[in-house]
Amino acid sequence: MISSQEAIKLIESSAAKSEIISVPLEHSSGKVLREKILADRDYPPFNRATMDGFALRSQGFSKERIYSYERELHAGESFSLKEGEEAIRIMTGAPVPSGFDLVIKVEDSVDQGISEGKKQVRFETDKTSSFANIAIQGEDLKTGEEILLEGTEINTAIFSLLASLGRSQVQISKLPKVRIISTGNEIVGIEEIPKPWQIRDSNSYSIRSLLQKYGIVPESIVRVGDDISLLENAVQQGLDSDILILSGGVSMGNLDLVPKVLQSKGVQEIFHKVRIKPGKPVWFGMKGKQAVFGLPGNPFSVQVCFRIFVESYIRKFLCLPTESPLLLPFLGERKKKNQLTEFFPVRLERKQTTVLTENKTNGSGDIRAGIFSDGLAVQFSDKEKIQDGELLEFYPWN
Amino acid sequence: MISSQEAIKLIESSAAKSEIISVPLEHSSGKVLREKILADRDYPPFNRATMDGFALRSQGFSKERIYSYERELHAGESFSLKEGEEAIRIMTGAPVPSGFDLVIKVEDSVDQGISEGKKQVRFETDKTSSFANIAIQGEDLKTGEEILLEGTEINTAIFSLLASLGRSQVQISKLPKVRIISTGNEIVGIEEIPKPWQIRDSNSYSIRSLLQKYGIVPESIVRVGDDISLLENAVQQGLDSDILILSGGVSMGNLDLVPKVLQSKGVQEIFHKVRIKPGKPVWFGMKGKQAVFGLPGNPFSVQVCFRIFVESYIRKFLCLPTESPLLLPFLGERKKKNQLTEFFPVRLERKQTTVLTENKTNGSGDIRAGIFSDGLAVQFSDKEKIQDGELLEFYPWN
Repeated sequence: MISSQEAIKLIESSAAKSEIISVPLEHSSGKVLREKILADRDYPPFNRATMDGFALRSQGFSKERIYSYERELHAGESFSLKEGEEAIRIMTGAPVPSGFDLVIKVEDSVDQGISEGKKQVRFETDKTSSFANIAIQGEDLKTGEEILLEGTEINTAIFSLLASLGRSQVQISKLPKVRIISTGNEIVGIEEIPKPWQIRDSNSYSIRSLLQKYGIVPESIVRVGDDISLLENAVQQGLDSDILILSGGVSMGNLDLVPKVLQSKGVQEIFHKVRIKPGKPVWFGMKGKQAVFGLPGNPFSVQVCFRIFVESYIRKFLCLPTESPLLLPFLGERKKKNQLTEFFPVRLERKQTTVLTENKTNGSGDIRAGIFSDGLAVQFSDKEKIQDGELLEFYPWN
Repeated sequence: MISSQEAIKLIESSAAKSEIISVPLEHSSGKVLREKILADRDYPPFNRATMDGFALRSQGFSKERIYSYERELHAGESFSLKEGEEAIRIMTGAPVPSGFDLVIKVEDSVDQGISEGKKQVRFETDKTSSFANIAIQGEDLKTGEEILLEGTEINTAIFSLLASLGRSQVQISKLPKVRIISTGNEIVGIEEIPKPWQIRDSNSYSIRSLLQKYGIVPESIVRVGDDISLLENAVQQGLDSDILILSGGVSMGNLDLVPKVLQSKGVQEIFHKVRIKPGKPVWFGMKGKQAVFGLPGNPFSVQVCFRIFVESYIRKFLCLPTESPLLLPFLGERKKKNQLTEFFPVRLERKQTTVLTENKTNGSGDIRAGIFSDGLAVQFSDKEKIQDGELLEFYPWN
């Protein structure tokens, strides 16, 4: 049996790469950029006043000097200085006229009345160096400068930046087409009244919710019993996708048909079983560029295997970098007896610092297992006991 | 001027409460639950085998004893024991028949051939206590037990739980209707070529992206120059919403019309200016149950004010609990000279533990300010210097 790290490496090295598509900017937030982005002009595009106040020359400034001014300049306007113009009133966001290199904020000005039809002002400030209260043209970005690379996730600041740069169309990773199959004779639809020995299909809901983080809506969700020909049909149809995710039917029982059916449909097994708990029976294979995951049937196992394995695939497919889990201290102790790497649900709690605390459960079949958890912490296979305060790897759900 | 904590308290105490709506379960992931949820039956609903193996009685077990068995039981099936039946083959997920209280996994069984037409088996295991390898009926939840309260965010595990409980319809908080107005004569659309002293409208994109975290799509986005009658019209139309968000036009410049126009339209000011950087000129008011935010015009100020103030409102509106920021160590030192609380962009970096590192910027007008940041860290007003390793409050973007 392989370790979870080995499994993730196999997943990443098998992964297909999504196509590049061009979309209107407003559809790209949260997606993955697939082109290099250069600055279309300098940013700021002009010497911008960062305060409401007065623009003037820093050279020859004196607190005693009285300045005349007539004109005022607002954001969205521009003018050139006139011969002999000593100062102007200027508003935040306006371009400082060429020839001036200092803005003094209005709070530091002292009105001196009017003389010869011109307003008079002096200034009580020591902040008079060249370019004080001015954002200098090009100080953030120069025309042509490379600012974003392929494989960048379009977060809010990047989305805003792309708007500033006028990128009304943007090239992104096309989302994968995902199909879901829930297997098991014991599974009924959520609108049905189950017989005492039946349970409702919750796993397709878990998977749907976990896909939502990437903006993916599943193409189809089907439910099939443990019947070889029905399962073959479902898999055949399911293989019209980039990622097919099954739940149930991968453990040792003699009705666990999923691996057999997948192989009969030409899906090549890459691994079956990983040294983890929960989720040990997890199956992964590829058919050409199509990935297939066989997740175990327990609700919490599905959530763990998706978070650790399916997400690794999705990230690689979308050209995102490999995830690096956080490292946070654990509150309390935790023992385990097996030789498996355990992924267990934890909450973030604010003590002297932010710590992880365990969400106690009755195992991977407990339908409450992850409900108030913020993510998963890891106890590696060879770690018999976690000490209070020890640092653990943490995978947040979101 | 009030502090950011005071501002958040005022926002929360002013907030209207969203309506309750009933939606199909599949539309509820990530939303806020607005009903109490009870277990519809016991969970597990039966004594469930958690391993593939053999079911038998724990009483009288012995490693030497040879057991006869004939029948096998799969998940999704049920039967009663026959007179004298000693053991059955059982698969993971199947209901353990009444009368048996032990499951021994198949790996611990030793085949003993066939005798008198019945298969024979014995067991090499010490795990033979009553209910070993069985999830007991009701051990996770009892019928009628309260499991979820109003105001719970429907994360993946809860979504899955609601499916298990057969909640095909669920009551959630209706999302707010949000309208956005970008103001400023210097602002042009993203598809336009700006004149040298103009900039493109990036703020409405920031706000759109930040709303996406809550699944909110803005009802309308309009752009208006600094013209009192145009702005009055836009505000009049914008007030047909739960939350109206403006950017620009709230600082001291004499064209900063937003507060005046809002008040003329009957929006009552609750605060104007908060002791923070960036975002000091932020304005907040209410008209009946409608909230109005006037955010400053700089791109990074918009992102900070939304994350700290608008999100506080949205959370309260949706009946989510007040956010508690994480507390994480800061790598490096940081000084400030002003008496403001500073929110600055940081990245999570994995060192011996996960630490915050500062994203250096040229201030709130820098269009690159937040681009590779994971969230905001806080340097409180009275804190002149942050020491290396000091714990800071951290607000992740997501």
